[in-house]
Amino acid sequence: MASYEIMDRFEIHRNEDFLKKARELTPVLQKKTVIPTVVKGESKGLRKGDRLFLDFGDHYVGYLRIKVSSSGSHQDAPAFIRLRLAEREAELSADPDEYNGWISKGWIQEEWLHIDLLPDDIRLKRRYAFRYLEIEVLDTSQKFSLNVDEVTVEAASAVSVDDIELPDCGDKVLNKIMSVGAYTLQECMQEVFEDGPKRDRRLWLGDLRLQAMADYVSFKNYEMVKRCLYLFGGLPFNDDRISACLFTEPEYASDDTYLMDYALFFVCVLYEYYEATKDMNTVYDLYDIAMHQIENTKNALDERGIVRDLGDAFWCFVDWSEGLNKQASAQAVFIYAVRYGIRLAELMDDDIKLRELRILEARLKAAAIEHLWDDENGLFVSGEERQISYASQVWMILAEVLEKDKAEALMQRTMTLDSKYKMVTPYMYHYYIEALILTGKKDIAISEIKRYWGGMINAGADTFWELYNPDNPEESPYGSCMVNSYCHAWSCTPVYLLQKIL
Amino acid sequence: MASYEIMDRFEIHRNEDFLKKARELTPVLQKKTVIPTVVKGESKGLRKGDRLFLDFGDHYVGYLRIKVSSSGSHQDAPAFIRLRLAEREAELSADPDEYNGWISKGWIQEEWLHIDLLPDDIRLKRRYAFRYLEIEVLDTSQKFSLNVDEVTVEAASAVSVDDIELPDCGDKVLNKIMSVGAYTLQECMQEVFEDGPKRDRRLWLGDLRLQAMADYVSFKNYEMVKRCLYLFGGLPFNDDRISACLFTEPEYASDDTYLMDYALFFVCVLYEYYEATKDMNTVYDLYDIAMHQIENTKNALDERGIVRDLGDAFWCFVDWSEGLNKQASAQAVFIYAVRYGIRLAELMDDDIKLRELRILEARLKAAAIEHLWDDENGLFVSGEERQISYASQVWMILAEVLEKDKAEALMQRTMTLDSKYKMVTPYMYHYYIEALILTGKKDIAISEIKRYWGGMINAGADTFWELYNPDNPEESPYGSCMVNSYCHAWSCTPVYLLQKIL
Repeated sequence: MASYEIMDRFEIHRNEDFLKKARELTPVLQKKTVIPTVVKGESKGLRKGDRLFLDFGDHYVGYLRIKVSSSGSHQDAPAFIRLRLAEREAELSADPDEYNGWISKGWIQEEWLHIDLLPDDIRLKRRYAFRYLEIEVLDTSQKFSLNVDEVTVEAASAVSVDDIELPDCGDKVLNKIMSVGAYTLQECMQEVFEDGPKRDRRLWLGDLRLQAMADYVSFKNYEMVKRCLYLFGGLPFNDDRISACLFTEPEYASDDTYLMDYALFFVCVLYEYYEATKDMNTVYDLYDIAMHQIENTKNALDERGIVRDLGDAFWCFVDWSEGLNKQASAQAVFIYAVRYGIRLAELMDDDIKLRELRILEARLKAAAIEHLWDDENGLFVSGEERQISYASQVWMILAEVLEKDKAEALMQRTMTLDSKYKMVTPYMYHYYIEALILTGKKDIAISEIKRYWGGMINAGADTFWELYNPDNPEESPYGSCMVNSYCHAWSCTPVYLLQKIL
Repeated sequence: MASYEIMDRFEIHRNEDFLKKARELTPVLQKKTVIPTVVKGESKGLRKGDRLFLDFGDHYVGYLRIKVSSSGSHQDAPAFIRLRLAEREAELSADPDEYNGWISKGWIQEEWLHIDLLPDDIRLKRRYAFRYLEIEVLDTSQKFSLNVDEVTVEAASAVSVDDIELPDCGDKVLNKIMSVGAYTLQECMQEVFEDGPKRDRRLWLGDLRLQAMADYVSFKNYEMVKRCLYLFGGLPFNDDRISACLFTEPEYASDDTYLMDYALFFVCVLYEYYEATKDMNTVYDLYDIAMHQIENTKNALDERGIVRDLGDAFWCFVDWSEGLNKQASAQAVFIYAVRYGIRLAELMDDDIKLRELRILEARLKAAAIEHLWDDENGLFVSGEERQISYASQVWMILAEVLEKDKAEALMQRTMTLDSKYKMVTPYMYHYYIEALILTGKKDIAISEIKRYWGGMINAGADTFWELYNPDNPEESPYGSCMVNSYCHAWSCTPVYLLQKIL
């Protein structure tokens, strides 16, 4: 399932004032040098076909340095080596030559190096995210062999788990889940909140929301959230819609991708940022652009007050479940965001907006009940084909469309639902756990966290993954685990969820 | 046929005074920026699988710079490209993955680049020798394509054919051969005389001799010859034997390879350098180490006064003909070098040495006639199996072992000889042409130059090759044309030979 958008006409409406504020908040990254251990192979006297397999002991994001020399006669030909870097060992079993998925092969972390002069102190310019490194000698010559004298990574992050103390959950498994979550978040906190430091390496708005929530109860790096808010606020499209994601290099720029749910989350992130910091200045700056996201989404409604279904287009994220219809979830996210908009309007004493949003909220909820609720099944349906999915129920519960007891009953039915539109991302799982918490099912929330995030740890995760299907841990929507991101910020949220529950 | 030597105990006896002189003679390279033309493919909007084929119009040795940018949406993945550089177009038809020859695969000029940020101005650090460049896009993403906006090479050499005027041979073909020879030499004149700027890239003593001869009648860069003499003279083994080749990076160092003929050529190069420059100071400095090469070779003689046959070992170069026995050639090169030694001793008024060398010359010649001459065939034989080869005859003629008329008759027989030990390198062909000239066969020398070096030009050569078999122009002793050197200094000598003849 290729999920991307290309806009024909696309211009960014840069707010240089906001971008200046964002620039001033650029973090200074903390650096740390880490030395690996040799797991397989010899580090001296390597010749054609020899491989050296190194384990850095944990996931790192950073810059590789390799000191090499020669043994035997004087080097009389370039030493030719290949490097492969992997977050999980399993990636190294796959053959990059056979990769033919729909996302770029360029994401596979591999390099070919000719070393013309030995000894050499090679500092690779690119940044990698990895725990494992394989060095394969493609050739030396008959007269000399290669020594790998020293390998280090200069690991970088804006924060460090060493600087924080996480609460004790009173449970070994949960403590481990919490600490892996925090470590995952650390790895993704670079110059901005990246989604995954290995692949994509971008600031996505939907991911930002979850990262910010986790950050407030761990690293408390409020400045990075603020920076990201100003970046999104400073780089809307010409019609002031906020992009789903943005780039910070070579210069700040939005991607030509709009996702309705992500744009609406800007409202939530801004309010939650205020709640965490009481920084009213940022609210003053970004209130208008936040409100515009709600205003704009009104254009997406049909005459019934229901978000128009755009089908298979990449218009609303929700989850990566194949064939998932997004209409009901989009309607629910809209309601959910309007509620945050109401809180912002209250903060701003914006009575006109407040009244308007309250009316909107009621109208959206009523429309949802009238057109998307299937009384017979006691479930929400989505799209013309009245698709029943987990996502629709979870989001309608979080949108508080139903009264408390009805929502609890729906949650119960959702848990035992047998829909082929399963939840597939930790991102969606996060909202599922939120729905469990909201409907009072804290024990189930904990056991689901243990099953889902604990499952990744049982599968050997040092950091939480972009995707995890408990039924098939090696699954990839891209055609190979080599391009899966095994350190992905949107899966870090047990840091937040567990503290909320306990 | 793998031809290399590895010495168990190997130490260099550095003469820092000589090396200082060599260092002071380091040339300043002339630089020139060259832009290629697009031969195949589009330079804009390249996507996965697209190839761009560029022709720089002539052979260049230098540094590549590639300016790239993107089209479409913002770059959202690393652009992944592969470069292949070739001296001849034919190299690009071969598949590097299938190369399995005995010399290093690292010599194949190919690179894989991940470009994380576009636009980019990529300056490749390695030096290449090439005329053709192929850029293959291994991947971009669904959202952007790659533009190759500008490609240049900063070509480097210590000399330039633009600064010299070659004599008119009165024949178009010969003029072309002369100019390609000079261009070949130019490309090989870098910080020292390199054998081939693409592969090996080293200073070999046997090659130096031919390069120096060609240089004296073209670029007249006497300083580079002087520098190379001081390098060889300054880096003998502990027993003062001179190495067959040396490295200048990361620091000056001899290779652990001794070739009897190459070591003896030090005597010839020194004398010829004096002849060209009348620089007696260099002769004073290097006389002892030159004489030592002759002195040492005396140890290689058996009780008959014949050089001991070391069979298949890499002990004496002569030529690369498979199975060629080197004994007779080695004996002849020894005699030949002693004659140059006599001239040096005359210059130095070293009467003792002079007498000694005259006796040695006579003894070596007499032994050659007695033990290596086959009166029945009227040919020289080599080794226990009395092998008959072109090389043995050519070298014995050059050693002037026979009287003039006998030598002329031998040359005649050599020309019509049917030996399976054919001449295979332009290096050997050079001495064959010298033998033709010496025996008065100038017309044949010219027609042979036209056949052999002209054959390379007919096969599309911009520069003369390391190897050329007229019966099989694509032949490689390494298993692939990709690692053949198609700009190889030892084939530049028509510059010298033609001027000598005409």
